Amino acid sequence: MKMKVGLLGGGSWGTTVASLTAKNAETVLWARDEETVNEINNYHTNSKYLPGALLHKSLTATTSIEEVVSTSDVLIMGIPSQYFRSVLKEAKPFIRPWIPIISLAKGLELGTKMRMTQIIEEELPGHPAGVLTGPNLAKEIHSGQAAAAVISMVDQIIAKKLQGIFNSGVFKVYTNNDVIGCELGGALKNIMAIATGMGDGADAGDNTKAALITRGLSELTRLGTAMGGKRRTFAGLAGMGDLVATCMSSKSRNHHVGFQLGQGKSLNEIIAEMNEVAEGVKTAKAVMELASDYNVDMPISREVYKVLYESNTVYEAFKSLIKLESGSEQEPG
Amino acid sequence: MKMKVGLLGGGSWGTTVASLTAKNAETVLWARDEETVNEINNYHTNSKYLPGALLHKSLTATTSIEEVVSTSDVLIMGIPSQYFRSVLKEAKPFIRPWIPIISLAKGLELGTKMRMTQIIEEELPGHPAGVLTGPNLAKEIHSGQAAAAVISMVDQIIAKKLQGIFNSGVFKVYTNNDVIGCELGGALKNIMAIATGMGDGADAGDNTKAALITRGLSELTRLGTAMGGKRRTFAGLAGMGDLVATCMSSKSRNHHVGFQLGQGKSLNEIIAEMNEVAEGVKTAKAVMELASDYNVDMPISREVYKVLYESNTVYEAFKSLIKLESGSEQEPG
Repeated sequence: MKMKVGLLGGGSWGTTVASLTAKNAETVLWARDEETVNEINNYHTNSKYLPGALLHKSLTATTSIEEVVSTSDVLIMGIPSQYFRSVLKEAKPFIRPWIPIISLAKGLELGTKMRMTQIIEEELPGHPAGVLTGPNLAKEIHSGQAAAAVISMVDQIIAKKLQGIFNSGVFKVYTNNDVIGCELGGALKNIMAIATGMGDGADAGDNTKAALITRGLSELTRLGTAMGGKRRTFAGLAGMGDLVATCMSSKSRNHHVGFQLGQGKSLNEIIAEMNEVAEGVKTAKAVMELASDYNVDMPISREVYKVLYESNTVYEAFKSLIKLESGSEQEPG
Repeated sequence: MKMKVGLLGGGSWGTTVASLTAKNAETVLWARDEETVNEINNYHTNSKYLPGALLHKSLTATTSIEEVVSTSDVLIMGIPSQYFRSVLKEAKPFIRPWIPIISLAKGLELGTKMRMTQIIEEELPGHPAGVLTGPNLAKEIHSGQAAAAVISMVDQIIAKKLQGIFNSGVFKVYTNNDVIGCELGGALKNIMAIATGMGDGADAGDNTKAALITRGLSELTRLGTAMGGKRRTFAGLAGMGDLVATCMSSKSRNHHVGFQLGQGKSLNEIIAEMNEVAEGVKTAKAVMELASDYNVDMPISREVYKVLYESNTVYEAFKSLIKLESGSEQEPG
């Protein structure tokens, strides 16, 4: 029997994934915004979030969450972390038994500090929960450029079935059973993207950027493994791959926030000018709490946090990072 | 007693390091080219390799290798890998006993497949051999931007002494006693820089680039650890840091070679137009032999080798890398 895919969320990445799965399975997208829904149905475009991109012509959309959810054999959540739980609760009454629920979000819930699959397990126990992650810039996928991603679930049989739904042409999907590592990699790298963006905005150069990415990976691996993720995951596509892509690319929203901070703008100004969420901004708060819970030193995240929430300047952040005494590379830090 | 530093080589990186050590210790640079020597002495510039950069005013230069070597307490070899041994042999009669010899080269000797410190140990047994490496783009250091580097020697007491000679302001030097890992990191990343350059030249996008860098680090770590390097070194500045900086930057010579190949130029054309060596081109040959000696699969290096030496196209290289079947991320490859 053919599988039907339901995807909640009409942002840039949700729409992109829906357009990918539409090649392999009947896919319906839910968005609250009527204009977006009409545009997808009539013109196969989503000009607000993906200007210029043509979506797969079999993809349809609706504003009725019941219509999407009640017929779905797989539910994909293209909803930012801070709205993830409330949308999942809206969908809950219509979700069919047993179906897997896959998160596309790369953040942690403020307050609970939970990963998205933890929220799924809490709200809908018994449903297999997973995450699709990796170095995936939406715009490149629409222009037909190659990319690799990771589908991560505890149950590898389900993961392999879903692999076939996501895989398409030059979009290659790998499986990985380390859900904790895959989710944390995606969430934590956004803070490093803000840090490298700050450096780029302040014209710190590629040497600094490379050092920041390297130390950043080591920092997120420290927290990630303390929380139960596997070291190997952080060295793979869901960790290093996503980190490098996000830090390198001016197309990343988190990098953009950092860049504007580096140029001296205030966080409020920057957020006011953006039409999509930069996950790292909120996640930075949860990460500072986790660093303290797990007793892990996270100097880069701390400096980012101070710029975001304690009115430190980018100059002060870099001065403080450079001051960390040079010693042996093997020492922590 | 104050230490005197002798540096052999007047290329961009050798000159940059000499200008850095000149801040901390009397430094004399040897170059074969009389024009370069006169320019350094009279104008504190090296316009052929470092246009626009002003060198430290206390740095002097000479065309007499004896003059430099016979008075040096530390000898730094800023000589490309394929000329390293012959210049070292030229210097040998004048080298004072016991003094440490530090390599700046990031390649392997063709034929012998040797690392530079192995050549030092073979030619001058008893002299402590080390390497200075890391994510260091010469031009950025001259423009006063921050950078981190690694000095690696077996003897950590000597390494710490040398740390003080290299450290200066925003150029921060760490020590690491894994010489094998540090040297291999620097040599192997140049092949990955050619690979990402090929992708950039062919407009493959940032998703592909991030995947290539991630898989590239995993590939060079496999060979590096098989040869005795430590996994941790490849995750640090001398491995990942240098890899990311070189792959990201259009200022890298190896990236430049790849980029031109990606645009459809031939290797001969590209080399003819360059005034400095791109180490990765020669090192690729040695690495293919090592991969076979140590029985390590290196798909990215192999595709780069085929483009360089077996007239494969960049298109064929990427087609072949994409074709590697997607499976579990944990599987080798």
